[in-house]
Amino acid sequence: MKEYLELEKRFRRISKIQHAASILDWDEAVMMPMGSGEARAAAKAELAVIRHEILSDPRLGDLIEKAKSSNNLNEWQSSNLRLMERQYLSASCLPSELVERSSQAASKCEQAWRTQRKENNWKAHKALLDEVVKAEREVAEIKASVFKLKPYDSLLDQYEEGLKSEQVERILDELKQRLPTWVDQCIEIQKRKPAIPIQQKLAPSKQEQLGRKLMEYFGFDFNRGRLDISHHPFCGGVPQDIRLTTRYSEDDFISSIMGILHETGHACYEQNLPAEYLDQPVGNSLGMMIHESQSLLIEMQVCRSKNFLKFLRPLLVQIFKLNDKDPCWSLENLSALYSKVEKGFIRVDADEMTYPLHICLRFEIEKDLIEGKAQVSDIPEIWDTKMKNYLGLSTKDNYRDGCMQDIHWPAGLFGYFPCYTMGALVAAQTFEKIKSDIPEILNQIENGNMKELMKWLKLNIHSKGSLLRAPKLIEQATGKSLSSHAFLSHIQNRYLENT
Amino acid sequence: MKEYLELEKRFRRISKIQHAASILDWDEAVMMPMGSGEARAAAKAELAVIRHEILSDPRLGDLIEKAKSSNNLNEWQSSNLRLMERQYLSASCLPSELVERSSQAASKCEQAWRTQRKENNWKAHKALLDEVVKAEREVAEIKASVFKLKPYDSLLDQYEEGLKSEQVERILDELKQRLPTWVDQCIEIQKRKPAIPIQQKLAPSKQEQLGRKLMEYFGFDFNRGRLDISHHPFCGGVPQDIRLTTRYSEDDFISSIMGILHETGHACYEQNLPAEYLDQPVGNSLGMMIHESQSLLIEMQVCRSKNFLKFLRPLLVQIFKLNDKDPCWSLENLSALYSKVEKGFIRVDADEMTYPLHICLRFEIEKDLIEGKAQVSDIPEIWDTKMKNYLGLSTKDNYRDGCMQDIHWPAGLFGYFPCYTMGALVAAQTFEKIKSDIPEILNQIENGNMKELMKWLKLNIHSKGSLLRAPKLIEQATGKSLSSHAFLSHIQNRYLENT
Repeated sequence: MKEYLELEKRFRRISKIQHAASILDWDEAVMMPMGSGEARAAAKAELAVIRHEILSDPRLGDLIEKAKSSNNLNEWQSSNLRLMERQYLSASCLPSELVERSSQAASKCEQAWRTQRKENNWKAHKALLDEVVKAEREVAEIKASVFKLKPYDSLLDQYEEGLKSEQVERILDELKQRLPTWVDQCIEIQKRKPAIPIQQKLAPSKQEQLGRKLMEYFGFDFNRGRLDISHHPFCGGVPQDIRLTTRYSEDDFISSIMGILHETGHACYEQNLPAEYLDQPVGNSLGMMIHESQSLLIEMQVCRSKNFLKFLRPLLVQIFKLNDKDPCWSLENLSALYSKVEKGFIRVDADEMTYPLHICLRFEIEKDLIEGKAQVSDIPEIWDTKMKNYLGLSTKDNYRDGCMQDIHWPAGLFGYFPCYTMGALVAAQTFEKIKSDIPEILNQIENGNMKELMKWLKLNIHSKGSLLRAPKLIEQATGKSLSSHAFLSHIQNRYLENT
Repeated sequence: MKEYLELEKRFRRISKIQHAASILDWDEAVMMPMGSGEARAAAKAELAVIRHEILSDPRLGDLIEKAKSSNNLNEWQSSNLRLMERQYLSASCLPSELVERSSQAASKCEQAWRTQRKENNWKAHKALLDEVVKAEREVAEIKASVFKLKPYDSLLDQYEEGLKSEQVERILDELKQRLPTWVDQCIEIQKRKPAIPIQQKLAPSKQEQLGRKLMEYFGFDFNRGRLDISHHPFCGGVPQDIRLTTRYSEDDFISSIMGILHETGHACYEQNLPAEYLDQPVGNSLGMMIHESQSLLIEMQVCRSKNFLKFLRPLLVQIFKLNDKDPCWSLENLSALYSKVEKGFIRVDADEMTYPLHICLRFEIEKDLIEGKAQVSDIPEIWDTKMKNYLGLSTKDNYRDGCMQDIHWPAGLFGYFPCYTMGALVAAQTFEKIKSDIPEILNQIENGNMKELMKWLKLNIHSKGSLLRAPKLIEQATGKSLSSHAFLSHIQNRYLENT
């Protein structure tokens, strides 16, 4: 027990350093003037070094070994110890030469990507990406042996512990079998009654007012968080001080409000984590899949539903002083706007129905890259073939809108993409369970009453922190292991039947 | 040399930790939601612990000893080494029990002060302040022996290295002999032609616009800094990213604009520090006296002058769309408003003429407290007597507006107060020298041309960093050692002759 308590102390230090680093990150994205980047980067790197020093200290390894034989740990402490070991091994298993090389390759490639993408310059980019992939293969190889996983799975595992490529592959295959046909059907249906575009400009200050109001409905605690503006919406800060951002365009209030609602899903997860363990690994949120499921549950399951739009519409009319009779503000038109499906090149602009196909493509390519079954030079051709198959679009010679569109690979983030779609599936399965546990939930949502919804999420997901690995948490919360079923029936229901 | 370079490396780490701490401080004052205070305090304390660990490491002491025998250090490196030793000794000379006790006494007393002041509750406050004074006496005792100074001087030395109570006492005595009479004379003069108060409300957004414009005139680089709003104006952040704040009241634009100009003086000092030494002690700004001299030079010497007001007036008329004919906006009236003298209880509201008397009072009391010549229980009576002597005001039983008005003593900041007035003297003496070096300076100021002024300050003060101790810097920059002469003739000129 003595060793375990000493470990808690050391991880408490790390959590405080993480607090500083998170606030610096937020500040950099929201506040920092352009010319201060270099000094800021140096300060952040120093915090990372200090964190790494504490985390890779061999005495930490000794303490973990000794604490393991302690038999009076409760379940939270046991999980905490497991997570401590995971962090210790992650920090200490890679030779520092490789850490340095992979981080330099990624930072060089990511920086070059910012201009190379604009210039559609695949040729120059390829060489840099090749270095990143080489280093990531080595990282995957080592982590695989340490964590007893397949190489690509060891990368997946960084973003969501316990997520396996076998499961991802099976589930994405199920989506791939149905979605391409469904997308075509849906587009045909939507053609019959096209949505009326909104021409009216809506003041950003009013959009913000609406956004804050909605955040409050979902229980966001402004006493422990803020809403600001940044280039890309994100949810940063620390659980005790959540920093949510969005951007406003007077021509596109849907995207700013949906941005806020999406991030509010992330934010409420963080604000509802178990207070007594916030400074320990077990009190942190789980990985990217679960985090994304919380934002997508709020955004996709709840807020793009007709039920929510029934609640939202009078608020819009009131705040923006809209003409109630204008058909573009009718419930049907809002719903049509909020669930428009289109085949497009760009993942981040994709709707909920085509999005998984973008992910299938990336998952298949990055898995083959890490396993050495594909090379960087093959990417454009594979990309083009798959885009034609899944979405009927050619990206030949259009690298900018094809394989060069995302920051993930240049930044060395392999194993991250699947979390987006797996998160969407978790969201659908969770909301299905909520509807069965709380039969009046849709009615509550129509009336802007989100209390029971958020209470359910807090009880079954948020307050669990990292006590359980994701697969177990999903099973406990929804009563079954993750499948594509709920997601596919949600898609059918929203896009093919209900229109 | 090897040891010196290793020292630079260690102090570079400290400077990066300081970067993080400074941005967290700014964030706390400007951005942080109320409910996040506890987590933030813990994160900041951790950074302080890490800094202290690096700074009090005995190996640092060894390195300093060895580096001292290196004979190929240039003058910057030598000064740097001296400052490193000073920081090392400060961090390591106090027993940790005393550090803990003094910090706890101060934090307890400061927190209680926030309510006790409102309640005018001296009785409860006295006991807490007593603990603070006891601890500070011990600190002073130890630092005195380490730095070979008198006890109170060792506290002064924390805020401005090289500042001695003997000099402070002599100079403050000179002010005390003249100012009380002069204040009476000035009030008589001002009574004859009272300033017309401004009734018009001026929009905060326009005040901010004006503030930013003025900051640019003084060369503030917005690419390496920001202007925001906080409860009390301050200049925070780091030299590479200066965070200046003010507050706006539509009824009092003078205070918001003067707040900005005052902080701009601090800010330009920081932005003009020697770029190549910013991550070393020698590249930092000097102590509080010199820092205050830079803000007071801009605020008091330059911006409250008739010359500056001639430049400011048309800007005011343009930005606020004022009625040019309204006598309240005449140059004479603006000048009268900007140099109004009043006897008041509160130091922070005091004008430039009565302010030093508030400082005399505090200096005399705190010096006696530290030297054991006065006790905490004596404070109210001494305060009342001195206030009557210096400003003709009684504070009997009015602790709130008397000895309980400042945060300094509850927070354990003894030796800080004299820096304000000593800084005002440095500002006057410096501006006198500038006027003699640049005969056309007043004319330039009238035309909003601050380039030569700022160039002079950068060359003679800002770019020196901490290369020289304050007394030497003043001598080099102004050609003589610090005296009350320039300040007193400035006061005579502005308040007694020129009206």
